Amino acid sequence: MKTLVLGGTGFIGSYVVDRLLASGHEVRVFSRTPEQFRSPLAEVDYRLADFNDIPALEEALSGVDVVFHLISTTTPATSNQDQIFDIESNLVATVKLIQLIRDSGVRRLVYLSSGGTVYGIPEMLPIPEEHPLRPICSYGIVKVAVENYLHMFQQLHGLDYVVLRASNPYGERQGHYGVQGVIGTFLNKTLKGEELEIWGDGGVVRDFVYVKDLAALCVAAAESDKVGVYNGGSGRGHSIEEVRGYVEEAVGRKLLVIRRESRNFDVPKVVLDIKKASHAFNWRPTVDLATGIKITWDMMTNSAKLPTR
Amino acid sequence: MKTLVLGGTGFIGSYVVDRLLASGHEVRVFSRTPEQFRSPLAEVDYRLADFNDIPALEEALSGVDVVFHLISTTTPATSNQDQIFDIESNLVATVKLIQLIRDSGVRRLVYLSSGGTVYGIPEMLPIPEEHPLRPICSYGIVKVAVENYLHMFQQLHGLDYVVLRASNPYGERQGHYGVQGVIGTFLNKTLKGEELEIWGDGGVVRDFVYVKDLAALCVAAAESDKVGVYNGGSGRGHSIEEVRGYVEEAVGRKLLVIRRESRNFDVPKVVLDIKKASHAFNWRPTVDLATGIKITWDMMTNSAKLPTR
Repeated sequence: MKTLVLGGTGFIGSYVVDRLLASGHEVRVFSRTPEQFRSPLAEVDYRLADFNDIPALEEALSGVDVVFHLISTTTPATSNQDQIFDIESNLVATVKLIQLIRDSGVRRLVYLSSGGTVYGIPEMLPIPEEHPLRPICSYGIVKVAVENYLHMFQQLHGLDYVVLRASNPYGERQGHYGVQGVIGTFLNKTLKGEELEIWGDGGVVRDFVYVKDLAALCVAAAESDKVGVYNGGSGRGHSIEEVRGYVEEAVGRKLLVIRRESRNFDVPKVVLDIKKASHAFNWRPTVDLATGIKITWDMMTNSAKLPTR
Repeated sequence: MKTLVLGGTGFIGSYVVDRLLASGHEVRVFSRTPEQFRSPLAEVDYRLADFNDIPALEEALSGVDVVFHLISTTTPATSNQDQIFDIESNLVATVKLIQLIRDSGVRRLVYLSSGGTVYGIPEMLPIPEEHPLRPICSYGIVKVAVENYLHMFQQLHGLDYVVLRASNPYGERQGHYGVQGVIGTFLNKTLKGEELEIWGDGGVVRDFVYVKDLAALCVAAAESDKVGVYNGGSGRGHSIEEVRGYVEEAVGRKLLVIRRESRNFDVPKVVLDIKKASHAFNWRPTVDLATGIKITWDMMTNSAKLPTR
């Protein structure tokens, strides 16, 4: 199939591109930035423009079957610093995209939502997709609004979509972007010999998913004919303290840690129920957390030894 | 208490103002338009400005205890014609308002949401507040997003709010504004001798609430110390055909009706479960539909006989 990956040079997007190419699909990438950690791929048709550049977006959609929307201009932490910017740059821009898609030949959209924020403080663990949506950060509120517009356009105009509510992805390329993610941050700081910060007592629990497992889910969702909302995570919970333990195992020594006050937008525990996605897409995470952190560290230290391009 | 009614010269807002004055509260009104169906009230402090005029809004909030936010720039029907306008003029403007309120001395906000649109196609009737939120029009999606921002600001900044998910209000002043509402439309067209339009087979069921009952709920919510989301309706369902019957009874003759194709954004049946609000605010609707339509018709025909001001 002919695919367009919005955010295809980003952390998750670049792995989705790899997976699509490996599966023999045609790939076009729409992104504000060129490849940052590797040379441009010969097989990929790059369109470098801002997400708000509607004519460029319209041109990029031409001839495409399936769109992956992986762009976000904010993170859970930054979104609350300026909610208006979050609404304008993510929600308004995405509704414009959906309108363009409705009027184009695109038949399917895979949208990356956020399993870590849309549910708010969970009433039960693991969290199923039917759990009430009570986000306590703007990032999550905007994700819910986008999900609702997708549902509406599906009902009114027959636009097929899959929403993937991703948990916390991690993997080698994460650190290169300075995006959120405690594992990437821990590993990068350790590589540079810097101290780590842990908010609160380190008891915050997250569902960490190895980025290649998440990319495989994105592609499986695109290849299927299912429509709806699916959690995408590992289905397992690990505390920040456990993560620290796995990082120490991978690195082979104790880490330097500074304790900070806990942050009011951090939900205490998130573990996603992934049965629905496993069943619908015949998909399963393949890399456990200890292994994933070890692989990531080994790749980072190997690439750190290579000469800089 | 010192109150500010955003949209206080509108259909619902004007009845909220009446109720507040009758209960001895101080009333300031913020609205784009002056009183349309009556002379300005001497007891009311009017501030005429656009909802997007932030300095005017900030000034209007000064010294206020409780804010009623009853402004909407769209209706369920118009919202889908331009979703971007809906987001910009309702969601962005309301988040700016909430930010102003957080930084002001206001201690409480009553927000009018939409019981007819936020739930989407109901899974059960009557609909309780915990029902999943799956709106299929932009109007409902924006209402859900505002509700989520209120919840977030309450969690993070302690802002107290009551969301009232109103059903379909009707009453005398509705027709003067040309806003949505099948009862106002039916009565006004009948008054002018025009034909009525009915979409589909007239089997669409709605929860119609007499506007003075809804205004009483708004004021009761403001006077209480409760925080959260409450349905506000009659708790009863009536089809469009039944409404036509009641209008014919009130008018005393058969109506002229044209049948139109059903509209894709019309949810088939909405009846709200109002137990939660009844219990929390010691409130109950007092006017049934047949009586309410009769009162409304009698007031309209009486005022129609008066000389125009």
